[in-house]
Amino acid sequence: MVAPLKVGIAGLGTVGAEVVRLIESEGRTLAERCGRAVQVVAVTARSKAKKRGVDLGGIAWAKDPLRLANDPNVDCLVELIGGAGEPALSAIETALKSGKSVVTANKALIAKHGLRLAAAAEKHGGALNFEAAVGGAIPIVKTLREGLAATGINRVYGILNGTCNYILTRMEQEGLSFAECLKDAQRLGYAEADPSFDVDGDDTAQKLAILASLAFGTKVAQGAVYVEGISSIAPEDLRAASELGYRVKLLGVAMRTVKGIEQRVHPTMVPKSSSIAQVMGVTNAVTIDGEGIAPITLVGPGAGGAATASAVLADIADVARGVRITPFGRPVERLKATEKAPMERHEGGYYIRLMARDLPGTAATIANRLAEQKISIESIVQRHPNGVDAGRSAGKASQVPVLLITYATHEDAVHRALQAVQRDKVISGRPQVIRIEKN
Amino acid sequence: MVAPLKVGIAGLGTVGAEVVRLIESEGRTLAERCGRAVQVVAVTARSKAKKRGVDLGGIAWAKDPLRLANDPNVDCLVELIGGAGEPALSAIETALKSGKSVVTANKALIAKHGLRLAAAAEKHGGALNFEAAVGGAIPIVKTLREGLAATGINRVYGILNGTCNYILTRMEQEGLSFAECLKDAQRLGYAEADPSFDVDGDDTAQKLAILASLAFGTKVAQGAVYVEGISSIAPEDLRAASELGYRVKLLGVAMRTVKGIEQRVHPTMVPKSSSIAQVMGVTNAVTIDGEGIAPITLVGPGAGGAATASAVLADIADVARGVRITPFGRPVERLKATEKAPMERHEGGYYIRLMARDLPGTAATIANRLAEQKISIESIVQRHPNGVDAGRSAGKASQVPVLLITYATHEDAVHRALQAVQRDKVISGRPQVIRIEKN
Repeated sequence: MVAPLKVGIAGLGTVGAEVVRLIESEGRTLAERCGRAVQVVAVTARSKAKKRGVDLGGIAWAKDPLRLANDPNVDCLVELIGGAGEPALSAIETALKSGKSVVTANKALIAKHGLRLAAAAEKHGGALNFEAAVGGAIPIVKTLREGLAATGINRVYGILNGTCNYILTRMEQEGLSFAECLKDAQRLGYAEADPSFDVDGDDTAQKLAILASLAFGTKVAQGAVYVEGISSIAPEDLRAASELGYRVKLLGVAMRTVKGIEQRVHPTMVPKSSSIAQVMGVTNAVTIDGEGIAPITLVGPGAGGAATASAVLADIADVARGVRITPFGRPVERLKATEKAPMERHEGGYYIRLMARDLPGTAATIANRLAEQKISIESIVQRHPNGVDAGRSAGKASQVPVLLITYATHEDAVHRALQAVQRDKVISGRPQVIRIEKN
Repeated sequence: MVAPLKVGIAGLGTVGAEVVRLIESEGRTLAERCGRAVQVVAVTARSKAKKRGVDLGGIAWAKDPLRLANDPNVDCLVELIGGAGEPALSAIETALKSGKSVVTANKALIAKHGLRLAAAAEKHGGALNFEAAVGGAIPIVKTLREGLAATGINRVYGILNGTCNYILTRMEQEGLSFAECLKDAQRLGYAEADPSFDVDGDDTAQKLAILASLAFGTKVAQGAVYVEGISSIAPEDLRAASELGYRVKLLGVAMRTVKGIEQRVHPTMVPKSSSIAQVMGVTNAVTIDGEGIAPITLVGPGAGGAATASAVLADIADVARGVRITPFGRPVERLKATEKAPMERHEGGYYIRLMARDLPGTAATIANRLAEQKISIESIVQRHPNGVDAGRSAGKASQVPVLLITYATHEDAVHRALQAVQRDKVISGRPQVIRIEKN
């Protein structure tokens, strides 16, 4: 009989407590699956006194994460503290340097220090598993790291933040404003008191940087991700998208282009018929475009204690079985530098919403400015306001919304055209621009 | 430097040739990912002379699969011959008994002899990987075997046969008959000249039996699968389904019930809003209901040379990395006997289409017979035929279709009620019954 895998858990929030509970309740299954028992031998958290609804009897209490990482009785450190810096970083690094394996759900840390930690894991022979860092219970890390070993990947994209998808779903289905839906999301516990990390796209960017590295064999490069959040999306954009056959989702997209690798996070119009468009509420989804094969889409719960704990346990089971795969699917020294494709050269279709002066010649002026930049228009709709007259109520000249969908063009051409339109003074306010992603 | 993994491939059809090509073209990536090279050292197929569009220069030609399995120069046998019996069975068994690892795409063989082969793999220390046997490039075997190690599974279900889904999609979208769509599928190469294995549900049943074993830790039991094909589905069923908010899919469903494990393959009405309902054409999809977490759905190409080869290569890569996981996720001797839940006790909603005599009292008779069996009706629609009058054109008394949707009830109650209705002579022909699966 092989000795049990002795686990130390740092961080006993919702996920940590659920991990302790699952190792206890699913002990027999885990032992059968792994060929050895899995046992929690030590834990640490900020407060020892806090009630967590799990039995910690017989489990040692480490004074801090570093001591837990140094505990010779621990084979595998499970880091559920979070945060891109201390104490998580030192605890993980210490554990790896002593040959221990590490399981973590910490996307911020892996996005920032993943390479350094992976190098330590490779050098000292431990595993560094982070399935729970991206997409909750969806096995996206395993799929990219192991499941598509010889399949070239052209694009990986998805809905990686449940908060944003919840807000956009409610806005679309109920015609509500961003602010109203955010407030509801906060009330329901789907959004933080300070929601900026989620709604500004930074959470998605960290996850995308990790997926891009796994997909393309490149160094994790969070700084190379172009990021735009969802706070500027208005109900009228979602209405227009729907009429045109699209939905708006906050996507993280990483793709190979001739100019390098594009990594971008922004509100995106996706065809209603695509798998990704069907994903509603807090659910996450990732689509992988593999060379020569139809897209693979994985859909599931992206957050929450049980979903995250499910991924953590799968990672622990791999450690228990003795599976040691290089953390990013290839040795760190073989990961290539990310050749960043400049966002100005991004190519795709665009949705543009303008508030135009309701005067003869306005549409022609706009169309000419686009034509100057060689942008072809797939559709243009000029709508006379029904109900509220935006212009009159503000005491200005009468205004009318103009909606445009372009054929594939370049980001900088769109910017130049819209700057020219603004100089022409035929519109008011900032144009709304949403990129279109085809499946 | 670790020695290369030396692969022998039995079967050089579309998939086999693609595997040879990928190992050659993706050699560097594979070596990086696995920490060692992967090399095809020997192959065998029925005809040596056949043109396959891949370079077999420098690769030994084995006279038959058994000799390939016995070749001491081969570390890993890749079996792509197919069929539940010889020569695949002996070749795999021989390879495993000599301590080699085996990768196979052979669902029929794994469904029938998987336990015996897994036992040989476990005893002699080789891997037995069969990701390509179910769901093509979708990593469903890996997800169930490794990704959900400590998550209890309540249900796994999906669209596992592209031929049937292609036919049902075309029938729905174009209002065509089963026979017309089958003919098109054959013309396009999506269906065999003898389509019965696909359209009668047997292909789905073999795949489902494998998934059920992985999901529930039970012995593979293809004989325990209840199977119904799609040939009786009429365009009017798809039309009615659509009006009622459903689509019809051929599903394989395995679920835990209080009466044991249900395994069933049959045309199924699924809510249009479900992930599985969005899956069109030859695409496959599997949904996993894990304990305490929202469903996980994997969607992707279920067949075709490139998709299958992608899964085969992932399996080979795991062998090369030295990953050895018990083939069914648990040691064979720990797999439980499948406690088969009797189909008569299946519980769920039902769609029923009857051709009723257009006489006063007919609807009441039907409703009474259902009430006698304590079946509650969610909706009942009696339609006067528009255009074609089925009764009159056949020279019989005028007839009218009646569509019923029931609330959850038992299979045997439905049968008893319909037998009574038939005895009442208020309907003609066989009632159409389609089970409803809720997400």
